[in-house]
Formats: sequence, structure tokens, C-alpha cells
Amino acid sequence: MTATIHHLAGKRVPSLEPMLALTGADMHAVNAVILDRMQSKVALIPELAGHLIAGGGKRLRPMLTIASAALFDYPGTRHHKLAAAVEFIHTATLLHDDVVDGSGLRRGKRTANLIWGNPASVLVGDFLFSRAFELMVEDGSLKVLRILSHASAVIAEGEVDQLTAQRQVETSEEHYLHIINAKTAALFAAACRIAPVVAEAGEEAEEALESYGRNLGIAFQLIDDAIDYASDAEVMGKGVGDDFRDGKVTLPVILAHARGTSGDRAFWKAAMQGDRTADVDLAHATALIRDTGALADTLERARHYGRRAIDALAPFSAGRAKAALIEAVEFAVARAY
Amino acid sequence: MTATIHHLAGKRVPSLEPMLALTGADMHAVNAVILDRMQSKVALIPELAGHLIAGGGKRLRPMLTIASAALFDYPGTRHHKLAAAVEFIHTATLLHDDVVDGSGLRRGKRTANLIWGNPASVLVGDFLFSRAFELMVEDGSLKVLRILSHASAVIAEGEVDQLTAQRQVETSEEHYLHIINAKTAALFAAACRIAPVVAEAGEEAEEALESYGRNLGIAFQLIDDAIDYASDAEVMGKGVGDDFRDGKVTLPVILAHARGTSGDRAFWKAAMQGDRTADVDLAHATALIRDTGALADTLERARHYGRRAIDALAPFSAGRAKAALIEAVEFAVARAY
Repeated sequence: MTATIHHLAGKRVPSLEPMLALTGADMHAVNAVILDRMQSKVALIPELAGHLIAGGGKRLRPMLTIASAALFDYPGTRHHKLAAAVEFIHTATLLHDDVVDGSGLRRGKRTANLIWGNPASVLVGDFLFSRAFELMVEDGSLKVLRILSHASAVIAEGEVDQLTAQRQVETSEEHYLHIINAKTAALFAAACRIAPVVAEAGEEAEEALESYGRNLGIAFQLIDDAIDYASDAEVMGKGVGDDFRDGKVTLPVILAHARGTSGDRAFWKAAMQGDRTADVDLAHATALIRDTGALADTLERARHYGRRAIDALAPFSAGRAKAALIEAVEFAVARAY
Repeated sequence: MTATIHHLAGKRVPSLEPMLALTGADMHAVNAVILDRMQSKVALIPELAGHLIAGGGKRLRPMLTIASAALFDYPGTRHHKLAAAVEFIHTATLLHDDVVDGSGLRRGKRTANLIWGNPASVLVGDFLFSRAFELMVEDGSLKVLRILSHASAVIAEGEVDQLTAQRQVETSEEHYLHIINAKTAALFAAACRIAPVVAEAGEEAEEALESYGRNLGIAFQLIDDAIDYASDAEVMGKGVGDDFRDGKVTLPVILAHARGTSGDRAFWKAAMQGDRTADVDLAHATALIRDTGALADTLERARHYGRRAIDALAPFSAGRAKAALIEAVEFAVARAY
């Protein structure tokens, strides 16, 4: 009994703290670039962009660029501009996503499209996206430009793919993994890969960090998908059941549908078509996802990619940066426990 | 009498023919790049992009890149990819514009957002925009990347500025010129300027072609704005009165409002606020614009910028390319006669 209590008390809960401590000073500089470069004489641009950019985002992707550069004790400052470019690409994507989904809430706040309308969100997204490329061009590395312009095209392709798959309950797990690889993991991978490029750490380091970022991104998205069907989802600031009501066929749904009875399958088909959107339907969906083991297995799939992310760091020697990158993965996959 | 007839019969009607003849072979190669690079395994992307790209556009902007390169007898093929990138940026802008305006018709065809919905138009626009940057990165000129990434940011800024000015009848002519400089003329200027960059023709040539493109772009937009209030506007495939009903405060409206009686001003204010959208209101607006001289003076302003575009070509020696570029301006400003 005492031992158990000791064990619990001694159990390290993974946190983002080591990552925040590692990147704090650099992230201060990154934030300065972000604030400076989202300015415009057209007042609506900083107003709208600031709502989202100052609005409680974790800056996870630029932080990955900074933390990855710390693996090589990179002494320069080029990664500040590039990390800001990564955040601008991400913010542009969020602005357009909220228009595409007709979302009203993000991170517990009203979305920009709800406050300023869809037109402003589309156009300010375009501005931030262009500004990201201006930042990269100022840096001047064609290799970085290649990595991030390719990632941007892959993200957009993944978003269209997801739109096509929306409400299609027969989407396969393979197809779904392909979608999240594109729409989410591609930017994580690129954010990590550009660090060894500016640090001139070589191809092996680039490939290792690309793999780290890609696997972390997939794990991150799977956890996000699972949280939509978890009861304590408000920790994310994401509305529980949003994916369900939007007819987004995520892995929990794919597994629950595949493992379900013919009655369950009829329910899922109707639900994804938008014919089962009441609270009682969400409760039923959540129960099915739990009872078929779909939730537990989505989390297990996430942990699988998390382990692959950690193993991808094998080429790098132990130290504060590596430990922070590892714990960031543990933190990401622990979110839904 | 006979002399007058002779004069009329002998009057050369400006046409795009010299430009089309000059650029034909290269534009064939540009079109091949466009068709190749709009492909994706996600079928909706080429389907939607193809609707707009194959849908009767004049390819005016990439044609300007090709014709400008012909001024220097540029012997290479780099401008094919870059002209395709220019067209992708333009197409992405059109897709997003139609979402922003809620348009249903473009060039006389149903718009992509009407057929496939706003989400698909937003995301395929993002894809084409990213693909444009991939093409530029493949070319590898940081100077070209700088010109086009800056133009893209300026375009988005101009679009947001226009959104802010929408329905504001007190918009000044100066502010309006600033908007169209950004949203339209910036891409014309960039399309022309990248040609002397790849031809390595020097700074003076770059500045001359930037000026040509910028002035042509402003003239082009002013004519477009005038056509919205002209009776034979269907020649453009643009719905007559679209700007009027959308509350777009263009130069014809700015001039008619400024020159109008207090009653006219009250009409314009109500109309731009969306309270006068009937056919009879459009007829009244068109009459006011004609009777105050606003239409004639908008056309005169367009001719002014057209003359500046032609004069910007002074550094270049006479020849087929220069003649085609000059006649393209004459054609653009003659559209509304």
C-alpha cells in the first residue's frame, strides 16, 4: 500500500516543461519575428492574425524547429525567422480549416471566421502564407524553401483528400493514415528537418529528424482524433464531438465501424451522413468506440508512432535537447489518458 | 465623306493577335507545365483546377512573362515554369476571390465554389499556390522567388484592404488606386519583371518592365471596373452590375459620388450598403455614372496608365516583341469602347 503510493507519487508525469525551458530564449526571439511580420497597414490583418496567433497556441511546430536545432548546438539565429515561417504556415492552415469546417470554437475561443467572417479569414490566411514564403526567401536557403513549399503542397493535398473522404464511412485505415500524414505530419516533419539544414548537420541528421517529426505528427493527430470521443476532452479546448458532428471519418470511427455489427454499421453510416447529431447519438458513438476497443487501439496506434519518433532520435547523443524532444513525444501521447 | 469612310475602314482595331502570335509556341510549353503540375492523386484537385484553368482564361499574365522575355531574345526555357507559377498564383487568387465574393459566374461559366463548394475552392487554391512556389523553387532563382513571394503578400494585403473598403462609399480615389495597385497590378508587374531576371538583362530592364506591367495592370483593372457599368458588358463574360450589387466601391462610383448632388450621394450610400440592388437601381447608377462623366473619366484614367505602360518600354529597341507589348496595352484600354 505504502509502496503503491510511493510509486504513484514518484511516477514522472510527462510534461512540455523541458521543451519550454530548452527553447524559451529562442522562442522569445521567434515571437518577436512573428509579431513584427504579421503587421500591415491594413489594420484587419494584424487584428485577425493576432486573435489566433496570440490566442493561446502552444507554438509547438516552431518549438520543434528550435529544439531540433539545439541538438546540434546551432549557434546562429537563422532558425528564428524559419520557425516563424513554420508558425505562419500553420496559422494560415488553421484559418482556412475553420472556414472549411464552419467551426465556431478553437482552443475554447470564438474562431476568426465567426468574428470577422469567412472572407477575411481566407484572405488573411493567404497573407500569412505569402509572408511565410517571404521570410524563407529572406533566409535564402533553397533547400529550406524546397522542404517547406513541398510540405505546403502536401498539406493542401491532404486537406482536399480529407474533404473528399468526409462522410465516407468506408474510408480505410490506410487511406486515413495517408490523409493525416499529409495534413498534419508533413509540417511537423518539415519543421524538424529544416533545423539540421541550417545547422549543416548532414543528410543522416535531416532524415532522422524528418522521421521524428513525421511520427510525432501522426501520433499527435491520432490522439487529437481520440480526444473527440473522450469524456474529458475540454482539456484541449476542442469541442467534444466536433469531428462526429462534422462527419469526419477518423480512426476511432473507422475501427468501430469495421468491428461493429450490421446495426452498428448502419448507425455509423447515418451518423457520418449527418443524420445522427444529437447528444444521445454522440453518447452512443462514444460507447461504441469504447466497447469495440476502437478508442484503446487508436491510443495504442498513437503510442506506436510515438515510439517510432523516439527511436528516430537514436543517432543523436544524449543531452538536454534529446531528452526534451523525447519527453515532448511522451507528453503528446499521454494527453488522452 | 469618302475620306471619312476610308479613315474608318483603315483604322487599325487593336487586338491581342500580335501577342498570341509572338508567344504561341512558348505558351504551348507553358500550358503543358500547367496541365502537368496541376495533377494530383486526389482527383478533386485536377477536376476543380481544370474547370478554371481550362475554362477560357486568356492566360494574360503568363503571356506577359513570355512576351517580356522575347524582348531580350531569351533563348532558354526557364520562363515556361515561371509563367506557369504566375498563372497558378492568379488561379489561386481567382478561386479565393469567388469564395470571398460569393460569386456564381466567372467568364460566363458557373464558378468552382458554386459547383464544388467553398471548402474545395479554398483548399485547391491553397494547393495551386503551394505548387506555384514549388515551381519557383525548382527554377532556383532567389530573385524570382523574392519578386513573386512579395507580390503574393501584396496581393493578399490588397484583397483584405478591398474587403475593408467594401460598402464604404467615402473611399478616396487615392485609396482605391492603392487597392488595385496591390490586388491586380502587383502580379502584372511581377509577371513582367521576372523575364529580364531570367534573361539577365539588368536592373534597368527589370525596372522598365515592372513599370510596364504595373501601369498595364492598373489600366486593365480600371477598364474592368468601367465595364461593370457599361451596357455591353457581356463581352467580358462578367455579369454586369456584379460590383454594384456587391457594394464594391470602384472608381466610377467614387467619381459619380464625389460629383453628385446630395440626393445622388444618399443613393450611392444606400446602394453600396446593399439597399438598392434592383435592376432599376442599377440602371439609375449607370445613368449617374454616365451623366457625371464618371465613366468617361474612368476610361481616361485607364488610358493615362496605358500611355505610361507604353512609355515605360522606351529603353527597348523596336521589334516584334515591343510592338506586341504595345498593342496589348491598346487592346486592354480599347475593351470598353
